[in-house]
Amino acid sequence: MKKLIVASLFLASLNIYGLNPAAAASQDTLRQKDTLVQVATIDALLGGLYDGVATIDSLKAHGDTGIGTFDQLDGEMVVLDGKVYKVGIDGHVEIVPDKETTPFAAVTFFDSDQELAVSTGLNLDSFTAMVDSSIPSTNLFYAFRMEGQFKSVRTRSVPEQQKPYRPLAEVVKDQAFFNFQDVQGVMVGFYCPAFVKGINVPGYHLHFLTADRKAGGHVLGFTVDQATLKIDTLNNFLLLLPETEAFAGVDLQRDRKHELERVEK
Amino acid sequence: MKKLIVASLFLASLNIYGLNPAAAASQDTLRQKDTLVQVATIDALLGGLYDGVATIDSLKAHGDTGIGTFDQLDGEMVVLDGKVYKVGIDGHVEIVPDKETTPFAAVTFFDSDQELAVSTGLNLDSFTAMVDSSIPSTNLFYAFRMEGQFKSVRTRSVPEQQKPYRPLAEVVKDQAFFNFQDVQGVMVGFYCPAFVKGINVPGYHLHFLTADRKAGGHVLGFTVDQATLKIDTLNNFLLLLPETEAFAGVDLQRDRKHELERVEK
Repeated sequence: MKKLIVASLFLASLNIYGLNPAAAASQDTLRQKDTLVQVATIDALLGGLYDGVATIDSLKAHGDTGIGTFDQLDGEMVVLDGKVYKVGIDGHVEIVPDKETTPFAAVTFFDSDQELAVSTGLNLDSFTAMVDSSIPSTNLFYAFRMEGQFKSVRTRSVPEQQKPYRPLAEVVKDQAFFNFQDVQGVMVGFYCPAFVKGINVPGYHLHFLTADRKAGGHVLGFTVDQATLKIDTLNNFLLLLPETEAFAGVDLQRDRKHELERVEK
Repeated sequence: MKKLIVASLFLASLNIYGLNPAAAASQDTLRQKDTLVQVATIDALLGGLYDGVATIDSLKAHGDTGIGTFDQLDGEMVVLDGKVYKVGIDGHVEIVPDKETTPFAAVTFFDSDQELAVSTGLNLDSFTAMVDSSIPSTNLFYAFRMEGQFKSVRTRSVPEQQKPYRPLAEVVKDQAFFNFQDVQGVMVGFYCPAFVKGINVPGYHLHFLTADRKAGGHVLGFTVDQATLKIDTLNNFLLLLPETEAFAGVDLQRDRKHELERVEK
């Protein structure tokens, strides 16, 4: 969706969901353009709900770009060009079979609205400042794809868990860190508005994959050498909640802001 | 969706969104079963964003049952059996033309999962206690349809606004109250989990329409004589955000909990 801020465009976008019988019959209807599609909630994951609730196959039907994790919290998920990659705790990357499952993931069909050349020296802080000033509103959702040469990237992955599951803020004490120097690769992820607190991560959340697709992880920091940033404005948000006993029972009333900070940073 | 709490059911429900090519081709795909579909956010409405951003026509394509308001905050919306009714500030009810618009509404295609006979004397407080103990989890969404004879119902409606718009907590000082005794009618509305704070109203939110469709409003209280309650469990939530300048600019960081309490009660 282009950056025109007009209500009629919003009304047009509603057609994607089958409001227009003609559009409904087309393939586009099934691709949910400009929609962040999410499985479960971040607070459920923080609470230790690591059992997969949606197949990779079903996730791929909702988007070709995104991030998440896997059944039993087994590594960091990077969805890129319709392929689902796992960055394991040992740093190895593999393409994940369709029949595997995820307890938490967010994807979209990436459709760039803006493209920006990124200056040498840009880091995570200056990235968020630059994007904040480039997006039409902090009240919508955005997907990112930043590709190029990085002077440095710092990532992490998380270890597969066994029951009884510990909260995520405990598990990340056992995370593995990976440091890359002068590396080619791509970062994908999302910006979510403040009002999704408890549901997803407010602000920026990026995962990384090297150009050879052999390493990556959850992004903790980076410095750009030369890269291009593509931004996709998403004005629809589809939340798919698991009808599992675990989700039914998890405490989603508690403020997990401080747990989230320990986990993300 | 029945009350079976199994992950496979969740995976099956994902098919509604076009994961299964066969299911995708059917009419069901377009009807987004078990999905609360919402236009804009409650905090944007509290902030005074009363200009319509979605047509009634497009809203009806997302559900046959629901609640909301209209362009310029002109009355209370009740969506029932696919018809969109407006309860005006003067207490009159009319069916709203498709071309009119809404700044905030939530609808679903109602598909009852549970039916309960409601005891004589049940009021709003005992209703919420009864439903809390009847639903499989407070972490999902639910739609309600309670139909029958009421000993009393207390409702309100809100007056059409002119720009510059005042915040909703100011506007409700000018609301009109309606008191019904020994009245037949139907209440429709939703339960939303705590984590939608800022997006929708956590907890219960009901609107009322008399059996003759000539009066109603936003429910403030009631006492049941004899009624039947139907509950539809909704495990999907689709949020449609307006790409308007007003939405882009509204402060959605502020905690509007106290404003919401003044408005809803």
